[in-house]
Amino acid sequence: MKYSVGCTLEYAVPSPSVFVFNLAPADTPYQSVDYENFTVLPEMPVETYIEPTLGTRYHRLNVTAPSLTVRYHATVTVTPEVRTPGDVHTIPPAELPLVDFPFVLPSRYCQSDQLMRLANREFGSLPFDFARPLAVADWIHRNVDYLVGTTTPLTSAFDIATSRAGVCRDFAHLGIAFCRALNIPARFVSCYAYDLWPRDFHAIFEARLGDQWYLFDPTRQASTGGLVRIGTGRDAADVSFASIFGPARMTHMDVYADAGDAESERQPKQWKDHAVSSARAA
Amino acid sequence: MKYSVGCTLEYAVPSPSVFVFNLAPADTPYQSVDYENFTVLPEMPVETYIEPTLGTRYHRLNVTAPSLTVRYHATVTVTPEVRTPGDVHTIPPAELPLVDFPFVLPSRYCQSDQLMRLANREFGSLPFDFARPLAVADWIHRNVDYLVGTTTPLTSAFDIATSRAGVCRDFAHLGIAFCRALNIPARFVSCYAYDLWPRDFHAIFEARLGDQWYLFDPTRQASTGGLVRIGTGRDAADVSFASIFGPARMTHMDVYADAGDAESERQPKQWKDHAVSSARAA
Amino acid sequence: MKYSVGCTLEYAVPSPSVFVFNLAPADTPYQSVDYENFTVLPEMPVETYIEPTLGTRYHRLNVTAPSLTVRYHATVTVTPEVRTPGDVHTIPPAELPLVDFPFVLPSRYCQSDQLMRLANREFGSLPFDFARPLAVADWIHRNVDYLVGTTTPLTSAFDIATSRAGVCRDFAHLGIAFCRALNIPARFVSCYAYDLWPRDFHAIFEARLGDQWYLFDPTRQASTGGLVRIGTGRDAADVSFASIFGPARMTHMDVYADAGDAESERQPKQWKDHAVSSARAA
Amino acid sequence: MKYSVGCTLEYAVPSPSVFVFNLAPADTPYQSVDYENFTVLPEMPVETYIEPTLGTRYHRLNVTAPSLTVRYHATVTVTPEVRTPGDVHTIPPAELPLVDFPFVLPSRYCQSDQLMRLANREFGSLPFDFARPLAVADWIHRNVDYLVGTTTPLTSAFDIATSRAGVCRDFAHLGIAFCRALNIPARFVSCYAYDLWPRDFHAIFEARLGDQWYLFDPTRQASTGGLVRIGTGRDAADVSFASIFGPARMTHMDVYADAGDAESERQPKQWKDHAVSSARAA
Repeated sequence: MKYSVGCTLEYAVPSPSVFVFNLAPADTPYQSVDYENFTVLPEMPVETYIEPTLGTRYHRLNVTAPSLTVRYHATVTVTPEVRTPGDVHTIPPAELPLVDFPFVLPSRYCQSDQLMRLANREFGSLPFDFARPLAVADWIHRNVDYLVGTTTPLTSAFDIATSRAGVCRDFAHLGIAFCRALNIPARFVSCYAYDLWPRDFHAIFEARLGDQWYLFDPTRQASTGGLVRIGTGRDAADVSFASIFGPARMTHMDVYADAGDAESERQPKQWKDHAVSSARAA
Repeated sequence: MKYSVGCTLEYAVPSPSVFVFNLAPADTPYQSVDYENFTVLPEMPVETYIEPTLGTRYHRLNVTAPSLTVRYHATVTVTPEVRTPGDVHTIPPAELPLVDFPFVLPSRYCQSDQLMRLANREFGSLPFDFARPLAVADWIHRNVDYLVGTTTPLTSAFDIATSRAGVCRDFAHLGIAFCRALNIPARFVSCYAYDLWPRDFHAIFEARLGDQWYLFDPTRQASTGGLVRIGTGRDAADVSFASIFGPARMTHMDVYADAGDAESERQPKQWKDHAVSSARAA
Repeated sequence: MKYSVGCTLEYAVPSPSVFVFNLAPADTPYQSVDYENFTVLPEMPVETYIEPTLGTRYHRLNVTAPSLTVRYHATVTVTPEVRTPGDVHTIPPAELPLVDFPFVLPSRYCQSDQLMRLANREFGSLPFDFARPLAVADWIHRNVDYLVGTTTPLTSAFDIATSRAGVCRDFAHLGIAFCRALNIPARFVSCYAYDLWPRDFHAIFEARLGDQWYLFDPTRQASTGGLVRIGTGRDAADVSFASIFGPARMTHMDVYADAGDAESERQPKQWKDHAVSSARAA
Repeated sequence: MKYSVGCTLEYAVPSPSVFVFNLAPADTPYQSVDYENFTVLPEMPVETYIEPTLGTRYHRLNVTAPSLTVRYHATVTVTPEVRTPGDVHTIPPAELPLVDFPFVLPSRYCQSDQLMRLANREFGSLPFDFARPLAVADWIHRNVDYLVGTTTPLTSAFDIATSRAGVCRDFAHLGIAFCRALNIPARFVSCYAYDLWPRDFHAIFEARLGDQWYLFDPTRQASTGGLVRIGTGRDAADVSFASIFGPARMTHMDVYADAGDAESERQPKQWKDHAVSSARAA
């Protein structure tokens, strides 16, 4: 499947600021960037860094001009792997590959250590397979309101477990925290989602079962089969689309993701019948 | 019904400290203190204060000795009112007596403002009667573990809504917060409970429906019909059994509550069939 | 001194909602409402309630129309008492009138129990007089940024003790929490302030020393001598200018406070040389 | 310098549990484990994992017996690098190696995103060199009480920034959070400290300046030159000395660290005159 994705970001930069962007899709065995164009106005050097373990790509700009415009465009071929949910099993702690140990530990916005009882009460009796993280995603969908403006960048899984409202980032954080509280490795995925409305960057979570990481979207706003992965991290802290060192502020933002072929458009928003993965486990 | 209640509290007092105790039962239309004895060692003046609205009794000591022993004993006659749950209804906001307005507002340990969505999701479709606060108490009993040592005096309803463990004080706080989030006036009641084990001070909540305040014990450890009310307040901050200004620390504590007649002993631990009240609304 | 104060508030009311307003100045020994006019559109009954202890006035409306406009106007004579700071002393815990006990206890937005060490580190060595609450107000002015949009109605003193930004309500909450952590009774005062810019409701705190409550404005935006008191409470929860039960939302708000005579205009913004009080202690 | 370090840990294991220990010193260019012995009772397989980037060593046990005893002993040669503080400079964001980007981001117990204003108010005017993290460590030493029993494993930097009490773990977390809020990469180091009393595992933080990571102990309890590094991570979540999956609980713990030669014993507890490092930057 092919997708055409990109964004335009504009900033006012009252004094020199450093930007670290994370908006270019990762190059992975399940996703290839066929063409891309990263334009910066005014022109300036762009430093690129690829995180070696997860493939997340960062671009750094040292901006001394009073304003900044970044335009990114790419065409990406995505080839997720789809398995039968019944074939997919969680890994017992005795066998959990320790390279994934960080993904069962609590992180800034995913305080799994504070959610142990709640997670085990709600999900502790489910079978040790795909049904667990699926039930986590379903619970969030049922129990948390998707409401723009109710949360801030400081909002965490612990907060929305009680406040019960948030956006995609918050939904993903709660999903991750619940999975980790159940000893299932889980991580944050920022992405372009072709059928998201209104247009914006999207965020979901992926959980490791067996030898793959499977995608879950507790907002149910996007098709997990039609996602273009940008960053992968412990939580949103690792893969913010823009980290700014300095007093700059955004003045305009536009994000798009269009289906590039017939198949791309037909990705169903399925939640139960397909176990979709776009990352092999380490 | 008659109960024989009391406590012995001992403190080390390394430098002069002021104590405000709240351990004598209130004198109310539903409860009379037939006999009481408040002994302090070493002997010193005891100042008594009765809060005029709620009848809570405070004793203040200005301790300059290196240790303090307080012994309190009372026999109390309790005559709660028992009504049929079906006859008891919540008060719509348009008719809520504004004298009780403070009891629908959030307080230190009962952040009803942060629990609005959760409360309305869980209880919002229930009938506007006794079933609401009863469902709140049941929910807490089912979803929160009673576990000594999991919380501190700083723990609040917001905390245990997610952490899901606590003691009687925490259970009462969550019950109050849920009720207030549903616009039901609710307040904290500290008490002696004759069938509590292990022996300790107890805490429950009461919610206003119609012209009475009804008692609910989400721990299900004590019979609401067999309680001896000590303090009534917005939350535990108002009716701590001992507020200490100075470096004193407790070295011993013993609390007791014994049934004084045959009827007192037979108070059933019923949760659904009786609406028990020991406070008339203002 | 005379002030002319008032406000216009407009709401969209998609379904029937109950409003409890607290925007009319209190009638106190230090403040008389010479004239007032409370207009509601569309016309409907207005229920008035005066809290007996503190004199705070509430107006309740049961709104079934799709919109609501409230216009309030009053002329008020204010006669604060001004004393010499050096004559004003804090009350030791052994002598604190227990009627003011609630005002040394933690409340929803003033978690003095969590600020004990910080308060005692910062202010514990100061003399037991006006210098203490004054130092609290000064500390807040120096250490917290006044920044609209950084906080929400859920923000508390505990939050801004670390985040270090907020608005008048947050500044008052932190002042109250610090005072209570020092065993100084303190409470929240909502008010009209004639020299506030931009125009809005204002909030400050008052602390009890000796037989009076003294006013402190840690924002330093208004003259404590030129304030028209609206509500007095434990914190903002008690005296929100509008508590709404229902889905209504504000569409317009305008607040004004004009000096009504020459003296009123000349109220100096003094912080150290005058101990200003507009409330006698109980 | 040589140190002889180790511990004995005993657990009751009521039902099968998985343990992941992190108590063996790391093998690094500045530290060599000359001899070590890891004994487990009852005998069972021990799986070893070395985190490839930071060298942290984990041991996993799958315990089915009703109890577990772990004894670890090692002799370690430590050769820290000592530089002159004046030669050591912070790295501007434009030049920060992005491989260390995770160490300027907030983590579970180090919410640097919530401490931005406080950090910049307190340390923002200091020179961009060793003085910054040193001032952070000094501030914590001066403003936070070292008090066993005041915090729990859930306590974070945000909490103690206001509560002002904690243990070594909390002190390190606050140091890390402040440094990151200042854009200085910082991380958590668990260790054996030969002069710590009472004996226990210790925790400090290290901050990257120039091409090295420098050690800071805000508790001032141990000599940074005499530490044996165990784990290195974002915060305590990464390098807990024991992560347990199951209902086991500790019944006994003993930790020791003895100086193995004359020089080891003489490590001064210096805070200002030496910049001590035991990790080269990536």
